[in-house]
Amino acid sequence: MTTTIFKKIIDGEIPCHRIYEDGQVLAFLDINPLSPGHTLVIPKEPAVTLDALSEESGAAIGRVLPKIAAAVLKATGAKDFNVLQNNGAAAHQEVLHVHFHIIPKLESGDGLSVGWRPGKLTGGEELARKIAEQLEPA
Amino acid sequence: MTTTIFKKIIDGEIPCHRIYEDGQVLAFLDINPLSPGHTLVIPKEPAVTLDALSEESGAAIGRVLPKIAAAVLKATGAKDFNVLQNNGAAAHQEVLHVHFHIIPKLESGDGLSVGWRPGKLTGGEELARKIAEQLEPA
Repeated sequence: MTTTIFKKIIDGEIPCHRIYEDGQVLAFLDINPLSPGHTLVIPKEPAVTLDALSEESGAAIGRVLPKIAAAVLKATGAKDFNVLQNNGAAAHQEVLHVHFHIIPKLESGDGLSVGWRPGKLTGGEELARKIAEQLEPA
Repeated sequence: MTTTIFKKIIDGEIPCHRIYEDGQVLAFLDINPLSPGHTLVIPKEPAVTLDALSEESGAAIGRVLPKIAAAVLKATGAKDFNVLQNNGAAAHQEVLHVHFHIIPKLESGDGLSVGWRPGKLTGGEELARKIAEQLEPA
């Protein structure tokens, strides 16, 4: 596995504008923000994609996302925000280390732009069963 | 607080294509999917936005997101995916109950479309300090 820029930030080899840190999680400002306060929340565990992250690191991030988001809103005055987490090149992942974006969304339009072209669910019963089967212990 | 459609699903008043459930979390297929396998993961706690969610519910969701995402990929054959969580009307929130979308991203383009217009971070040191101050105990 190559050393990503996020691993170097975790290890203190590259500086960051740190917002929060505990034993399993680090949060810092994105240096290419979509809006003021755009924050990255990452696990210290070096998983590339979320599906490969341990339950423990997932829980550690989930535990702190609400309070970090609340702090970003209070400090910036933004009211709305998106949380985005990308996995794989087709899904716009750029750094190969799991990261959650907290992106304030301003009425000016600054922030994340989302393209939404929904379809209609068909075959939902069978599909849900197929996914649920993957969650059952072997 | 009005009763949302997600609360009715949690309470069993409206059916869903259930994928996963535990004491704090429910996951089911989105009936208006952006791609096959588009899944919603929600806390049973009726918080409107993520910043208002308890740490316990946040941790419970974070703990199961990796395995639910992995199950969606295995069942659908997708390799890439986005996780999106919207808060507030400007940020495209439609149902007023916290929900995380897991959206497979296909090479055909089906899935989430993301508009990304980054700027350059300025004043990062002061901004990070302001956000971090909001995280400190009063």
